[in-house]
Amino acid sequence: MITRMSSLFLRTLREDPADAEVPSHRLLVRAGYVRRAAPGGYSWLPLGLRVLRNIERVVREEMDAIGAQEIQFPALLPKEPYVATGRWSEYGDTLFRIKDRKGADYLLGPTHEELFTLAVKGEYSSYKDYPVMLYQVQTKYRDEARPRAGVLRGREFVMKDSYSFDLDDEGLEASYRKHRGAYIRIFDRLGLDYVIVAATSGAMGGSASEEFLATAEAGEDTYVRSTDSGYAANVEAVVTPAPPARALEGLPEAQVHHTPDTPTIETLVDFLNGAGLVREFTAADTLKNVLVKTRMPGQKEWTLLGIGVPGDREVDMKRLEAGLEPAEVALVEEADFAANPFLVKGYIGPGALQANGVRYLVDPRIVTGTAWVTGADKADHHVVDLVCGRDFTPDGTIEAAEVREGDASPDGHGTLVAARGIEIGHIFQLGRKYADAFELDALGPDSKPVRITMGSYGIGVSRLVAAIAEQHHDELGLVWPRAVSPADVHLVVAGKDDTVFEGGERIVGELSQRGVSVLFDDRTVSPGVKFADAELIGVPTIVVVGKGLAKGVVEVKDRATGERTEIDVDAVVDHVTGLVRG
Amino acid sequence: MITRMSSLFLRTLREDPADAEVPSHRLLVRAGYVRRAAPGGYSWLPLGLRVLRNIERVVREEMDAIGAQEIQFPALLPKEPYVATGRWSEYGDTLFRIKDRKGADYLLGPTHEELFTLAVKGEYSSYKDYPVMLYQVQTKYRDEARPRAGVLRGREFVMKDSYSFDLDDEGLEASYRKHRGAYIRIFDRLGLDYVIVAATSGAMGGSASEEFLATAEAGEDTYVRSTDSGYAANVEAVVTPAPPARALEGLPEAQVHHTPDTPTIETLVDFLNGAGLVREFTAADTLKNVLVKTRMPGQKEWTLLGIGVPGDREVDMKRLEAGLEPAEVALVEEADFAANPFLVKGYIGPGALQANGVRYLVDPRIVTGTAWVTGADKADHHVVDLVCGRDFTPDGTIEAAEVREGDASPDGHGTLVAARGIEIGHIFQLGRKYADAFELDALGPDSKPVRITMGSYGIGVSRLVAAIAEQHHDELGLVWPRAVSPADVHLVVAGKDDTVFEGGERIVGELSQRGVSVLFDDRTVSPGVKFADAELIGVPTIVVVGKGLAKGVVEVKDRATGERTEIDVDAVVDHVTGLVRG
Repeated sequence: MITRMSSLFLRTLREDPADAEVPSHRLLVRAGYVRRAAPGGYSWLPLGLRVLRNIERVVREEMDAIGAQEIQFPALLPKEPYVATGRWSEYGDTLFRIKDRKGADYLLGPTHEELFTLAVKGEYSSYKDYPVMLYQVQTKYRDEARPRAGVLRGREFVMKDSYSFDLDDEGLEASYRKHRGAYIRIFDRLGLDYVIVAATSGAMGGSASEEFLATAEAGEDTYVRSTDSGYAANVEAVVTPAPPARALEGLPEAQVHHTPDTPTIETLVDFLNGAGLVREFTAADTLKNVLVKTRMPGQKEWTLLGIGVPGDREVDMKRLEAGLEPAEVALVEEADFAANPFLVKGYIGPGALQANGVRYLVDPRIVTGTAWVTGADKADHHVVDLVCGRDFTPDGTIEAAEVREGDASPDGHGTLVAARGIEIGHIFQLGRKYADAFELDALGPDSKPVRITMGSYGIGVSRLVAAIAEQHHDELGLVWPRAVSPADVHLVVAGKDDTVFEGGERIVGELSQRGVSVLFDDRTVSPGVKFADAELIGVPTIVVVGKGLAKGVVEVKDRATGERTEIDVDAVVDHVTGLVRG
Repeated sequence: MITRMSSLFLRTLREDPADAEVPSHRLLVRAGYVRRAAPGGYSWLPLGLRVLRNIERVVREEMDAIGAQEIQFPALLPKEPYVATGRWSEYGDTLFRIKDRKGADYLLGPTHEELFTLAVKGEYSSYKDYPVMLYQVQTKYRDEARPRAGVLRGREFVMKDSYSFDLDDEGLEASYRKHRGAYIRIFDRLGLDYVIVAATSGAMGGSASEEFLATAEAGEDTYVRSTDSGYAANVEAVVTPAPPARALEGLPEAQVHHTPDTPTIETLVDFLNGAGLVREFTAADTLKNVLVKTRMPGQKEWTLLGIGVPGDREVDMKRLEAGLEPAEVALVEEADFAANPFLVKGYIGPGALQANGVRYLVDPRIVTGTAWVTGADKADHHVVDLVCGRDFTPDGTIEAAEVREGDASPDGHGTLVAARGIEIGHIFQLGRKYADAFELDALGPDSKPVRITMGSYGIGVSRLVAAIAEQHHDELGLVWPRAVSPADVHLVVAGKDDTVFEGGERIVGELSQRGVSVLFDDRTVSPGVKFADAELIGVPTIVVVGKGLAKGVVEVKDRATGERTEIDVDAVVDHVTGLVRG
């Protein structure tokens, strides 16, 4: 295929667009791949659409290879199935809702669990029908509060979503593994540098869940990885290694101290160390009790919940929320203190909470036999040497404390460091949530119904264009991997005389006959403009037909390395075809 | 490619779906190509999606061949461009409107004239940039009052829409011709029987316009064609041949007659013929004056309009509306008669209308020198021999009278007959409406701005699946043309012993290696079920591997003709590959 730049619907920009903060956004706009058409809505110009289609092709090939079958649902969906699963309300403002001319409620699909479940229920009935994996490559809609960074986080975007349907947990595990393998092959083929992190589930409910994050400074997702092992996880999914429980014997008695004006951990530690007690204290010796309130979806009433964390760490609300999902979490207000006079603000201890029936969950570091300084449930008083398992017994543990760089890696190897990434894929063992909602059963061999278990798997297809661009660019422009480049070769005619144009035409024609797609710069602009555009556009191989043609040579430049090679004009078609075929 | 029916997400239905009235809907559902997911919203199951993709590929190839460039816009669009062109309100209830979380107005794109115009304005500035043709294959949304017949008229559907941008009318004409040619090639390749009819413009405003209608009883569009020539037109676009004007000299004077109880044409004609006047009258000798009211978009006030048609014809509101576009048309009510006492209901004549400033348009048959019986603007009175051009002078002509079978063809050859079709394509010279709305100019060679002129061209891609099915089916099921079939060959293993399964596998493997795609019925159901499904699904070539295998033969059946041929098993791969390659 030959694409002539003289007629291509493409105008590159020399200036960065004002609203572009990240490199991929800046370069995809400057190089004429995308244009903003609405807040969070982008138009794909010819070269951008080709990159998108190339990615879609790789995704489809690998999905087909694991036996997933492509179907396609509408994007405009009736409300009822989403009401049945609760997502009509759970999605909140993120869901685009719409009424038709009769006033009936619709939504623009954010993901399609409901529709796929109903589709399988509609077609299949026997255990012999299963397992099945279905997918679609489709436009999705989410009314993001902050669409940003071009196609990195849009409100309308292309997603591959797939769903597996199995008779039992082993089947689900196998489908999940197949998807995991397919995702690895897809992202490898697309030339991406990525990590697979343990993840929490978001609003979808379920169990095992991993995210594929393309490593990128521009990423919105923070994750942690180990310095010494392959461990990586979303901050929400980091599991704190619990120290071993200690013996209770011989530990000092708990003592209440008058600690005036110590409402913060810092003032408390200073006071204690100034009081000349038997030992020195640090913030890590204190037990900070944070009060929140929670309610389950559909509930009206809030319930108080106490959270205990070591005093040297803050409560990370995202980790706390992930740990309490699907419950909603809110901070307590003055009215809550007023309604519960046993709560002594700044001096809350486990005692009053548990005596008054408030559930109390603690950080996993707070194990039996550990001794703490904490609130004595009395203004200006703290208790020292309050021992877990002796003086108080938590109702359970929760991952609510912040994760810090330098924390031990949960796998026991190395320490954690923070990094940023772009979520490009998510694989997720949904379990039976949706099958329960719609009573998706198969008739088993014993004629008894078997409830189906599902997996849900997504790839942000249009986002991948940005993720790849984030990882494949330099100061001059984009540097596409071969698998996604909008053309195999960018051929520049540098010179004004007919000979070079004719030479270019001839080479382009021969390459095209070999099945090599060529972006052919046949414009009558200056060589400088053409070279700058070639660097900006980022096709991996650039062929320059110019002055050298008189001597029988053309120049072949590798966009990534900048390496230039003079090639005999009669050999250039073979040479370039070889490069393209890899 | 091999598609195994043992694992394919496909369940055929023996019964017709209750809501399916037309053959394509019935068969596409029964054969498992589509499923209803919402009112006017359909899911594409694996085989249906393949047919859709095959059609898309043909469309893209022919669009690319005329130099059109593919891009893609969002479907969720901001209101402002559609307000600028008036379409935000003109579309009425057909437009899906939506508010985002901030309360901003959006719409789901019904067509994208606005966005394409703005895109070209954004990239191009010089006359050297033009002409350009751009297209997209995209999901469109229209809140149809009556979605019907499956994917024939949905509310969410796939459309190819393209737009041409030219510097002058000659350029537009050339772009229009190119599209016309591409559409002919597309519909020919898809095996469609269709007519190209002169059309009116709908809500888009502009001049030359043709529709491609697939001939089908199930079609919603009525058109007329000549018995003796290639003439075909939408009823709205039929131009009535005007008879020559006649000399006024020697015509009898107009005379008013008392005609009691003759409020209808029929009673009037009976009365006149019973009155023993000098000649007999027919309904065609009477002039029926119909009163309507109109207002232009944006206007509040209605204006009365008189329409005169020969009394033997009804006013066809669709033709009248098309003739008055973009004005809105409504019937007059009692209140209008009350407010205008000069209107004598049942006895309205041209005189009172014109004396009171009511615009009066007549059928083209009402030419100078024709004499009419019409209302005398006085209850129970008519005037006879009221002569056009002598006793009244209309303000102009209008195509408002019904078109009837047997009317003379406007091209002078033969008479008109009515037929029904499915609109599959529309090509349309938009002119400068959108360029004016957005001031799309090119800087000319003389540095003066040149207003761009546009064409708009659409193909109903998902509707084509239904249109093809309407034309290609029989009582047993679908009969796909090769170009769109979901597979090249349907191979049925008929028999239970391993030999036939192994024989089938071997043939399927060899065909696949030759690049022939095979739908392989490897299920363990009865041969009868398999044969019925093969007929229903409609792949053009069916290969049956059964008992004959022992004798070294398999059966090759042509789905369309029903012809069966025994082929030597060693020759079948060559034979079938030959059929597929055509």
